[in-house]
Amino acid sequence: MKAHKTLRVALVGCGTVGGATAEILLRERDLLIERSGVDVELVAIVSLTFNHARELGLPEELFTEDIDTVLAEHSLDIVIELAGGIEFPRELIKKALDAGAHVVTANKALLAHHGKELFAYARERGLTIGFEASCGGGIPIIRAITDGLVANHIDALYGIVNGTCNYILTEMIEKGQSYSEALADAQGSGLAEADPSLDVEGGDSAHKLAIMTSLAFGTDVEFDAIPVTGINNLQATDVAFGLELGYVVKLLAVAYRLNGGVTAWVRPAFISKEHPLAWVAGPFNAVSVYGHRTGHTLYYGRGAGGDPTASAVVADILAIGTGTLPATFQHTGYWPDRNAGPPQISADQASSRYYLRIMAQDRPGVLASVASILGANGISIASLIQNEKALRNELIPVVITTHVCQEASLRKALTAIDALPQSGERTVFIPIVDEHPERWAR
Amino acid sequence: MKAHKTLRVALVGCGTVGGATAEILLRERDLLIERSGVDVELVAIVSLTFNHARELGLPEELFTEDIDTVLAEHSLDIVIELAGGIEFPRELIKKALDAGAHVVTANKALLAHHGKELFAYARERGLTIGFEASCGGGIPIIRAITDGLVANHIDALYGIVNGTCNYILTEMIEKGQSYSEALADAQGSGLAEADPSLDVEGGDSAHKLAIMTSLAFGTDVEFDAIPVTGINNLQATDVAFGLELGYVVKLLAVAYRLNGGVTAWVRPAFISKEHPLAWVAGPFNAVSVYGHRTGHTLYYGRGAGGDPTASAVVADILAIGTGTLPATFQHTGYWPDRNAGPPQISADQASSRYYLRIMAQDRPGVLASVASILGANGISIASLIQNEKALRNELIPVVITTHVCQEASLRKALTAIDALPQSGERTVFIPIVDEHPERWAR
Repeated sequence: MKAHKTLRVALVGCGTVGGATAEILLRERDLLIERSGVDVELVAIVSLTFNHARELGLPEELFTEDIDTVLAEHSLDIVIELAGGIEFPRELIKKALDAGAHVVTANKALLAHHGKELFAYARERGLTIGFEASCGGGIPIIRAITDGLVANHIDALYGIVNGTCNYILTEMIEKGQSYSEALADAQGSGLAEADPSLDVEGGDSAHKLAIMTSLAFGTDVEFDAIPVTGINNLQATDVAFGLELGYVVKLLAVAYRLNGGVTAWVRPAFISKEHPLAWVAGPFNAVSVYGHRTGHTLYYGRGAGGDPTASAVVADILAIGTGTLPATFQHTGYWPDRNAGPPQISADQASSRYYLRIMAQDRPGVLASVASILGANGISIASLIQNEKALRNELIPVVITTHVCQEASLRKALTAIDALPQSGERTVFIPIVDEHPERWAR
Repeated sequence: MKAHKTLRVALVGCGTVGGATAEILLRERDLLIERSGVDVELVAIVSLTFNHARELGLPEELFTEDIDTVLAEHSLDIVIELAGGIEFPRELIKKALDAGAHVVTANKALLAHHGKELFAYARERGLTIGFEASCGGGIPIIRAITDGLVANHIDALYGIVNGTCNYILTEMIEKGQSYSEALADAQGSGLAEADPSLDVEGGDSAHKLAIMTSLAFGTDVEFDAIPVTGINNLQATDVAFGLELGYVVKLLAVAYRLNGGVTAWVRPAFISKEHPLAWVAGPFNAVSVYGHRTGHTLYYGRGAGGDPTASAVVADILAIGTGTLPATFQHTGYWPDRNAGPPQISADQASSRYYLRIMAQDRPGVLASVASILGANGISIASLIQNEKALRNELIPVVITTHVCQEASLRKALTAIDALPQSGERTVFIPIVDEHPERWAR
């Protein structure tokens, strides 16, 4: 197959993903022509350090620290932004667009905060920003939402979108490890950063959720209004109680239609062992998307790592070459800068079943008080385990699962329960997420 | 959002999928404009009977039996072929292309047999055939292979692509039903046709496999050279033995690189309960695709039914409107009519672990003979269960699992075993499929 189009591209940032991207572009040029008809010429690798690039044996003559000269001297078709951070890439992308280049980026934090601004900036100039790599690594989830499911109203999406967290949780579930033990293991295997806070506190999952929610629902997501709980305070005892009850814990990034809007949150949640996301183990990611015509669809794969993420970066480059991505980017309605979509609704209005662990002093009347507070808030108890043998610091865990109730009511009840004189520690609560109903009915 | 493009389309065939397609086009026109910028005008519904169309309340003024007049009188952008069959749609599609219309079809049998001819016919005329709906119903699996994973060599694909079979197998596994009982249940629930042969004998899965194999590997698949075993001879006793050994049975449609080519087959296979396809239950479908950069990716959803399949049909219509599908169709290398891809390799050359059930007379020396035949063919035994209590018609089941061996050797051994004087029934053999290794290594 002959190339029908040639693209001149510059890569900015040469870490794990940048290095893998450069490798694909330089070493698999023929495969890319064969598969897409597009010949991609990498004209510069822009970075401040070239240690990783040298380890990979990338050609020194492409190395430069000076993006401005690259933009000025080459007539670039695409700038690939894999530098990370927020302010530098934000300015870089505008510069690239000003120079008439399309942009491909994997930067989820940037897009979650400034996607709307950047997408508008690109569209005003008739240019495209490709960002398949920003969510789900090698999983083509952005295309599924914007192209594959284009004939659908999206009703809901449920994602496991952080491999570090899923790896840690899998270790906690399968080996009974504590959070700190599992984190240390993950750091030892290179699956968690030395400073893991962006992953384990849920921020990274929330970035991806913000992007996917914008696309799927047309909602103008306010990032700071997404309630985010990470896995860093999750206790092994709750993981174990969950297993006893038939649940596994997953860090879920969830968005679904509610009360005329869309609610979105990131939290550790219990799901039944039969739930379609329960088998997603180790560093893998998966996103369930519920279309009103397709019903449940699910996309699974490696959500991070150099090669999988670079696969998504290169798919965007080629799709700019074939013209498919620009056509989608210019014409479809579901992008953060052009929607008057459903508003973001507080998770307080959401309803769920919940797991509660109350740590109470072993004194008469505790259960009666707890049950009465729950009842007064319209919350009914589905199951209750009070295990005397689990006495710890004079406190007994009372594990309750509730029937479906509203989160606002639950919070009110928990405030009252935690104020009881017999209450020892702050009550742990974890939503129990059932499979989303399919609107599909035929 | 305003439409930037209008398409005039005619629908041929108004059964389950055709009816659902017409409903989406007529009743959700605004949603489609909002999501794609494309306004689709349905100008005719061509069929021989309109019972279903009338049940759905589709507008009578669109009904016609005469496709030729429709083609002559309307300047159509797209003909949607949902008539079924082979020869009629084959001619219809050529007529439509001759009239300058793109084509969208869900017809897997037609494409498995004549895709190459039709794709070439379309390309010569600068036109596009969309066929997302031909594989996996509502799952955007064609786009995943041709677009999302475009930066990858595909190493393997493993599909559960027939919902009827997967439903029947799920019932056999979960309820211990026989094949006939489960089939009758499926027919009762509308999940199997009155004549289920195309589904249960594996032909439908093979059609889809042929299409996906062409796309994923560039192989010019000879349909009749795909070995196909259906589920219609599967016995409850083997399902039960499998469960005892930790396996569930699935009808797998598999293709992977082997000896410089690609081998493809459709068969009931045992997979471990931990295998990523094991949880795919009931009428759902899933396809695992292994890219050399992404590693394992998996796509799950409803593989049949009016609404999910119509979702894929409409996605193709809109992608023709935005221009993305024509760009892909004209320029990418991975389509059945333009490849000099790896050749199709006989499954005899494939290696696997196997489950064997030998039915032997309860006489001395049987085990020795069986073990000696297997050994002589280079096949080593991993486990063996001989259960006296399972005596049936004077025959005892000897259940063996083998280590990895070549299929050709196994067939030779089984011929010898079945010729033993103590051998009562033909030996059952089922491959045990382990998860495909990922080439991805970072």
